[in-house]
Amino acid sequence: MRNQILALGEVMMRLEVPHFQKLKQSRTLAYSFSGTGVNVLSGLSHLGHEVALVSSLPNNPLGDAAISYIQSLGISTSYVIQQGNYIGMYFLEKGYGLRPSTVTYTNRLESSFCQSVITDYDLDDIFTHAKAIHICGISLAISSSVRNLVFSFAEEAKRRGVQIVFDCNYRPKLWKNGELAKPWYERMLSLADICFMTEKDAIGILEMQTTGTTRQEQIEDLIPRVIQQYQIQTIAGTIRTVMSIEEHQLQGFLWQNNSITYSKPYYFKVLERIGGGDGFASGLLHGILSQYPPHKMIEFATAAGVYAHTTCGDSPIATIDDIYMLMNNESVELDR
Amino acid sequence: MRNQILALGEVMMRLEVPHFQKLKQSRTLAYSFSGTGVNVLSGLSHLGHEVALVSSLPNNPLGDAAISYIQSLGISTSYVIQQGNYIGMYFLEKGYGLRPSTVTYTNRLESSFCQSVITDYDLDDIFTHAKAIHICGISLAISSSVRNLVFSFAEEAKRRGVQIVFDCNYRPKLWKNGELAKPWYERMLSLADICFMTEKDAIGILEMQTTGTTRQEQIEDLIPRVIQQYQIQTIAGTIRTVMSIEEHQLQGFLWQNNSITYSKPYYFKVLERIGGGDGFASGLLHGILSQYPPHKMIEFATAAGVYAHTTCGDSPIATIDDIYMLMNNESVELDR
Amino acid sequence: MRNQILALGEVMMRLEVPHFQKLKQSRTLAYSFSGTGVNVLSGLSHLGHEVALVSSLPNNPLGDAAISYIQSLGISTSYVIQQGNYIGMYFLEKGYGLRPSTVTYTNRLESSFCQSVITDYDLDDIFTHAKAIHICGISLAISSSVRNLVFSFAEEAKRRGVQIVFDCNYRPKLWKNGELAKPWYERMLSLADICFMTEKDAIGILEMQTTGTTRQEQIEDLIPRVIQQYQIQTIAGTIRTVMSIEEHQLQGFLWQNNSITYSKPYYFKVLERIGGGDGFASGLLHGILSQYPPHKMIEFATAAGVYAHTTCGDSPIATIDDIYMLMNNESVELDR
Amino acid sequence: MRNQILALGEVMMRLEVPHFQKLKQSRTLAYSFSGTGVNVLSGLSHLGHEVALVSSLPNNPLGDAAISYIQSLGISTSYVIQQGNYIGMYFLEKGYGLRPSTVTYTNRLESSFCQSVITDYDLDDIFTHAKAIHICGISLAISSSVRNLVFSFAEEAKRRGVQIVFDCNYRPKLWKNGELAKPWYERMLSLADICFMTEKDAIGILEMQTTGTTRQEQIEDLIPRVIQQYQIQTIAGTIRTVMSIEEHQLQGFLWQNNSITYSKPYYFKVLERIGGGDGFASGLLHGILSQYPPHKMIEFATAAGVYAHTTCGDSPIATIDDIYMLMNNESVELDR
Amino acid sequence: MRNQILALGEVMMRLEVPHFQKLKQSRTLAYSFSGTGVNVLSGLSHLGHEVALVSSLPNNPLGDAAISYIQSLGISTSYVIQQGNYIGMYFLEKGYGLRPSTVTYTNRLESSFCQSVITDYDLDDIFTHAKAIHICGISLAISSSVRNLVFSFAEEAKRRGVQIVFDCNYRPKLWKNGELAKPWYERMLSLADICFMTEKDAIGILEMQTTGTTRQEQIEDLIPRVIQQYQIQTIAGTIRTVMSIEEHQLQGFLWQNNSITYSKPYYFKVLERIGGGDGFASGLLHGILSQYPPHKMIEFATAAGVYAHTTCGDSPIATIDDIYMLMNNESVELDR
Amino acid sequence: MRNQILALGEVMMRLEVPHFQKLKQSRTLAYSFSGTGVNVLSGLSHLGHEVALVSSLPNNPLGDAAISYIQSLGISTSYVIQQGNYIGMYFLEKGYGLRPSTVTYTNRLESSFCQSVITDYDLDDIFTHAKAIHICGISLAISSSVRNLVFSFAEEAKRRGVQIVFDCNYRPKLWKNGELAKPWYERMLSLADICFMTEKDAIGILEMQTTGTTRQEQIEDLIPRVIQQYQIQTIAGTIRTVMSIEEHQLQGFLWQNNSITYSKPYYFKVLERIGGGDGFASGLLHGILSQYPPHKMIEFATAAGVYAHTTCGDSPIATIDDIYMLMNNESVELDR
Repeated sequence: MRNQILALGEVMMRLEVPHFQKLKQSRTLAYSFSGTGVNVLSGLSHLGHEVALVSSLPNNPLGDAAISYIQSLGISTSYVIQQGNYIGMYFLEKGYGLRPSTVTYTNRLESSFCQSVITDYDLDDIFTHAKAIHICGISLAISSSVRNLVFSFAEEAKRRGVQIVFDCNYRPKLWKNGELAKPWYERMLSLADICFMTEKDAIGILEMQTTGTTRQEQIEDLIPRVIQQYQIQTIAGTIRTVMSIEEHQLQGFLWQNNSITYSKPYYFKVLERIGGGDGFASGLLHGILSQYPPHKMIEFATAAGVYAHTTCGDSPIATIDDIYMLMNNESVELDR
Repeated sequence: MRNQILALGEVMMRLEVPHFQKLKQSRTLAYSFSGTGVNVLSGLSHLGHEVALVSSLPNNPLGDAAISYIQSLGISTSYVIQQGNYIGMYFLEKGYGLRPSTVTYTNRLESSFCQSVITDYDLDDIFTHAKAIHICGISLAISSSVRNLVFSFAEEAKRRGVQIVFDCNYRPKLWKNGELAKPWYERMLSLADICFMTEKDAIGILEMQTTGTTRQEQIEDLIPRVIQQYQIQTIAGTIRTVMSIEEHQLQGFLWQNNSITYSKPYYFKVLERIGGGDGFASGLLHGILSQYPPHKMIEFATAAGVYAHTTCGDSPIATIDDIYMLMNNESVELDR
Repeated sequence: MRNQILALGEVMMRLEVPHFQKLKQSRTLAYSFSGTGVNVLSGLSHLGHEVALVSSLPNNPLGDAAISYIQSLGISTSYVIQQGNYIGMYFLEKGYGLRPSTVTYTNRLESSFCQSVITDYDLDDIFTHAKAIHICGISLAISSSVRNLVFSFAEEAKRRGVQIVFDCNYRPKLWKNGELAKPWYERMLSLADICFMTEKDAIGILEMQTTGTTRQEQIEDLIPRVIQQYQIQTIAGTIRTVMSIEEHQLQGFLWQNNSITYSKPYYFKVLERIGGGDGFASGLLHGILSQYPPHKMIEFATAAGVYAHTTCGDSPIATIDDIYMLMNNESVELDR
Repeated sequence: MRNQILALGEVMMRLEVPHFQKLKQSRTLAYSFSGTGVNVLSGLSHLGHEVALVSSLPNNPLGDAAISYIQSLGISTSYVIQQGNYIGMYFLEKGYGLRPSTVTYTNRLESSFCQSVITDYDLDDIFTHAKAIHICGISLAISSSVRNLVFSFAEEAKRRGVQIVFDCNYRPKLWKNGELAKPWYERMLSLADICFMTEKDAIGILEMQTTGTTRQEQIEDLIPRVIQQYQIQTIAGTIRTVMSIEEHQLQGFLWQNNSITYSKPYYFKVLERIGGGDGFASGLLHGILSQYPPHKMIEFATAAGVYAHTTCGDSPIATIDDIYMLMNNESVELDR
Repeated sequence: MRNQILALGEVMMRLEVPHFQKLKQSRTLAYSFSGTGVNVLSGLSHLGHEVALVSSLPNNPLGDAAISYIQSLGISTSYVIQQGNYIGMYFLEKGYGLRPSTVTYTNRLESSFCQSVITDYDLDDIFTHAKAIHICGISLAISSSVRNLVFSFAEEAKRRGVQIVFDCNYRPKLWKNGELAKPWYERMLSLADICFMTEKDAIGILEMQTTGTTRQEQIEDLIPRVIQQYQIQTIAGTIRTVMSIEEHQLQGFLWQNNSITYSKPYYFKVLERIGGGDGFASGLLHGILSQYPPHKMIEFATAAGVYAHTTCGDSPIATIDDIYMLMNNESVELDR
Repeated sequence: MRNQILALGEVMMRLEVPHFQKLKQSRTLAYSFSGTGVNVLSGLSHLGHEVALVSSLPNNPLGDAAISYIQSLGISTSYVIQQGNYIGMYFLEKGYGLRPSTVTYTNRLESSFCQSVITDYDLDDIFTHAKAIHICGISLAISSSVRNLVFSFAEEAKRRGVQIVFDCNYRPKLWKNGELAKPWYERMLSLADICFMTEKDAIGILEMQTTGTTRQEQIEDLIPRVIQQYQIQTIAGTIRTVMSIEEHQLQGFLWQNNSITYSKPYYFKVLERIGGGDGFASGLLHGILSQYPPHKMIEFATAAGVYAHTTCGDSPIATIDDIYMLMNNESVELDR
């Protein structure tokens, strides 16, 4: 029976300066391990699904620590190979009020994952129980070698009838110009069954044009055209409004079967900025796996995204009860 | 001269996950020791009163740590016996924004206090200097054995002319149904001189009915009926409005000598949710002991409750100056 | 194929006072989760074996945290059920020099595991891939209910041809007198294939007598008689000499195929007292699973036990390379 | 070439109770070293200027730690002498919501700096490269000896053509009455080229009177009169509105060449209350050194003041880019 | 009934750099409150005696924190007055191996205690229940004002029949020359009933001469002469041998009723250097209060001194059981 | 006047797991910045010399933090350029007893320093005040580009009459084989005036042969031949004996003017393994700069090396007094 959810992607070490200090003010860091794939799988694991990461990590104390951490999230690391020398890292200085957070990356190109090639992986083993595989658009931007790896996996999944979940995760800074990103995104969209994107991706990556002026108008104009052109079953995304570094609003949308469904907008305080989108993605995939009706699905996914902003770390850890509580607007008063 | 304020009750160990993490995300806990009795006495001690706890703790490092901690709050532990094996504990995961806090209890039934019986205590010694004794309604819910202990103390206090202060502290989750709680609360209310309760307790525990629709109408209908029925001198309580986990409003009311007095409403940011009610109680008792007029008494008590939400830990530590400053709406600008 | 190593046993929360402080001196605790079964499986997992815990934990944040922690050690928690309310705990105050460490337990009897019964577990699922199951003698001492649970598992394992590994782990304080322990240990020894014990267990539990005066003489007299009487394949144990709280000596012995093999004695500094025996056990089981010759097996096991005393926490985390390095007396000089 | 900015003043050790606790609740403190001079120089150093502190510190581990810390801010300590025995200290308990912060000083009078006299310093060396020297009004209040020291430096600077920057920093609590402060402030204002003050200083220290009722009216009435009377080139200051301990508003004003310029008002969340004025001062001095036009100068200075409230510690550490970002109202959304 | 043990003396704040760092390397400090009087009383309190401190502390957060901390040690602070502005402090950098620890004091002369005079204290209240009062020789060195205070207390105690316990605690660095110390020590020795001193004090302070060459010979020559000259009941002290910063040896001696008794020598690892002498003193006073025979008394006292070196902080916290365990050379192996 | 000591070399970020944990066991790291050059300069700065680092760091928060940290050590960063993207890092897991420490490097090749070329530096500015420049042999191993950079600096120094100090710091793991290292070391030795090396370097790098069997014999055979062949003024080094991870012995030797001088051997406990050699080097350079006679020079240098092992972190921070105290075998007993 095929019911395992896979994610392919890089694991990164996150090193965070505590107590709103800058790196030059502190002497200690808190660390954990994350990545789009890790985050989506963590979310799904905590919602009760069987999940496994496909990645590569160095065979040294950093790789060992990453594996132990990922296991603690309830993710199988059976398909994580250990080879190469390095792990990608990022340093996070949390902002406060009018001061934004900063993220400083180390060299990802030399990481064990980014140096790995398709033949390093045991595809038969990996796909044995797979129902779906999650792929992140950041991978497309890193290097042609990583791109090759990712497309090899996607095509192999297609061949084996495993569903492809693609999160556009477009980071313009990683691409020199739009022309470069477009063909690769188009190729991946043609393979994808489920896709996370917004109207901004349609405009920024796919160079689509719209006469819509509000975000809602643009979504309703562009997303169905993407659905049709690339033959995608489901597209979902969020409309985020940033009031301040601590206060955001989030509303989800879902396009499926020729119709759009919106969640209610959630206004909330942000404890953790990173990983909210992955919380949303894991909530939506849970909805699909649980065959929720569209309204419940997008409401659950958006609440999952919001909840992820209220817990520490990149990786979502909400349970179904946690998310229902939030969906249902229940009181936050302490229940003793 | 009898001027010592006693409190009878269980001491619990509080274990708090730091930095808004969940238990599964952290490796460290901050701990302290509290309980309704400890908290009310801590508040009174910091307001200048002589206070002593009546309780039982195990004769092991956990009991020793609890005693040391309680002493650090300015509470005498001369009447704390050391016997039995265990101490009740609770684990606190602090919520953030839309995510509520969670409290997980260990087994209280086996605690040194809950296993103790009236003959373990030296009543003559305990009541030598006592002016009043504080009793918490949670005790009534734990077991018939604890109930017996508490009523024995209350009746002994009555016999010796020591005032009884009773805080309803009704926790529906601890009672299987309302019928069970009612007779015990009625019996204790008949003994009590000063009582902390709200209209919710009158409805929920005493099954009283009211045609009032606002909280204020209900209070003004029900509380005088309670006063009359159980012959209580003073009833006080608070009306709490929860905007969000971090923002509450609190308004106090006091029913004494056939008339009700309200404090002004305080809107405030919440650092610590637990122990606010005990801050209010200690403020009110201070007002009674200091023979404040009703308006000053309820204003002081409400400010004490609010202040307790702005300091760390369950146990209030405000001084008289701190509370006056808050009552008088003085600026929070740093005074150098 | 049957190749999974199981361990049946209670998971306990360990709460440690940092920096050699006593509980009454500190405000923070470091916590982790352990237990004989967890420790032996952690050791085996880090040596490359597939392992799974059989236990029960509460369905609350404490249980969730325990499961996450156990997974981080590379142990499958597929066979851990979540029910009941409590988890056993112990508080550790680390000693220094002439001051011994202290351990304070909370009430284990009410723990989810100690309250669980055989019908709570899905035996068919649990034993599907099992090659061996590890059982700890502490379980026999807790209550008749836990004893029933453990014997049910042991007999079921026997029935299914799964090897039984039994660690005597005799704690006299948990038994009222030797007569009580003896029959249960005898019954378990009759079921066991591999057993961890010393001459002290033979004398203290089984009431065997010996004319040997040195520990070595007693071992060589008593252990073969135990082997013969209970038809055990392998018995192993250690001779520990405690110079001071920080300095121990350890020598392992192994009785197999009618002959005894000793490791060399290791003199070492102790960072962590708890879990050394479980390190030894995991090393020995690794030797058996890897079909090491006796000399290598006992040398490896003893080095594994020693290594466990040099790492933090109850659960061994040494790799094969770590242990070889120590067996081979390699320099500890930093290799850059 | 003369381009070094000096500041004369006391270095204090700041000891802060973590996590909003009170001193009696904690067991740990975070420490750093600051002072008006240190703060203004830190701000200037991070904006690219060459700066050096003129002060005295004890020749012991506290003095050594202070020097190391000040160097870490990019400030030269070549002109810091080491003599005497003590360093001034203050303990900070951070407030929360309605609870104000408290500052508790140790005895400053005995500090190395407050005991030093002009002949302890090598004036020729100190002024070799100096373009300007910053002096803080707090110095005038401490003792006649410190006052002598400060005036000796100011007059020496005047003699050598070094610009004098004077921050009134009037602390009424340090003066017994206004009469005492007035003559010393008048004497220093007569020496100053650039001055930080507000209408409150004109009224409170200089006993000037105004018919203005709003703060703006009073500023526009009083500041030009101060400019004229004491022949000051530039006066700047801020109008602070305190909504709550966490929320302030700040608007800067600048009087130069007979005309006043206001910055836009900034509404912001406050992480750190102390040192905001020094952030403003360093921003304004940067504007003067960079010959910014008045509007840009006051906007930059006010943004620098606001930014200083969003970083930890007394000493500003913003770069030019940080402040431009804030001036330009750029989004705080994470830029990855 | 007179059974309270008093101690008169200064409370100091101890600020310790963690993890063997120097002040210039760290950003955090651990703090506590101690002093010879506090330490001796803490030791006695943990051994079951009723104790109360006589001192003065500022009426500010530092004074409040000190009082809370002292209460946590089981010491009554009823006789601690709050007035003045400052508290003495010392910073501790712990040494390692060949690197010695360093202690840096702040200005004690201005402390609340050192500024207090005899009329600030309510002597009738203080001596109501007193059996004995402990006085520390350091007080004699600080200033003539503190000396006056201490002698006033000592003479008042003598007048009221309260025993005087005097610990020489001679610190040559605090005295300009021996001539100055001698008369004050002589005056105090004439008042003392019980005295802690060694042959070094007899030579260094009292300028006595001896032909003894070993420490033991010198003790046996000098101490009886001191006993006779000043009419002291009991003199006790320790012979410390420092092998390294982490390894000391301690042997106690007791001179009472014309005969000397030695404890066995204890060789031990040192966790905490400060307060060992106070542990010894509290052990000896416990022996006197419990009417132990001389051999048991000095053995208990020495073990108490040794034990104090194995626990964190200046203040002894050993129980009677802890010390018996150490006296009896029991195993430090973990007892589970 | 030329009196500034320069060091050319890479700055690395050190990330250390606290409390003897492994990376997979912890969630926090302590960080600092070091490197051979930083360490030697830190040592010299604390001994009173004017020092400046020549290096390159990224223009991001990591580079800024490194610069601030280096300044806190008293090192001028005027000649540190900011360009490129990365900084080299290493993770340190401290060993315990029989368990060795481990060091895990990130990719150094991409670091700002390793990517920099000679034309990025302003040589005229850098050498303006230089008396000597320190170069580390590790640089020779990294890449041909770094080698070019280092030789360019060395030759430029030679040309300008600046003394060259070369520390062989031979790390065989960084070189594929000895043939490769030899020519580069020979070329650098020909330029060097002062050299740190041992007989092991002569054998391992220079492929010299000796009939000596003890380390001393080999030193006395080989070092004078190196001196003669490469025309070096001074060669110094240490003989280290590793008893255990915590206990080492160190003896220094110095070859100057055709004669060898040994220090006494120091047996000591090791707090910090890394940076001891740099402590020795800074001590020796101090001796040369201070024109100490040979015996004092090598004694001082060896004590400086030993002292560096007793303080936290890679970078020596000992003062002249600290080292004299250690040289003179003064007591480590606390001096109060």
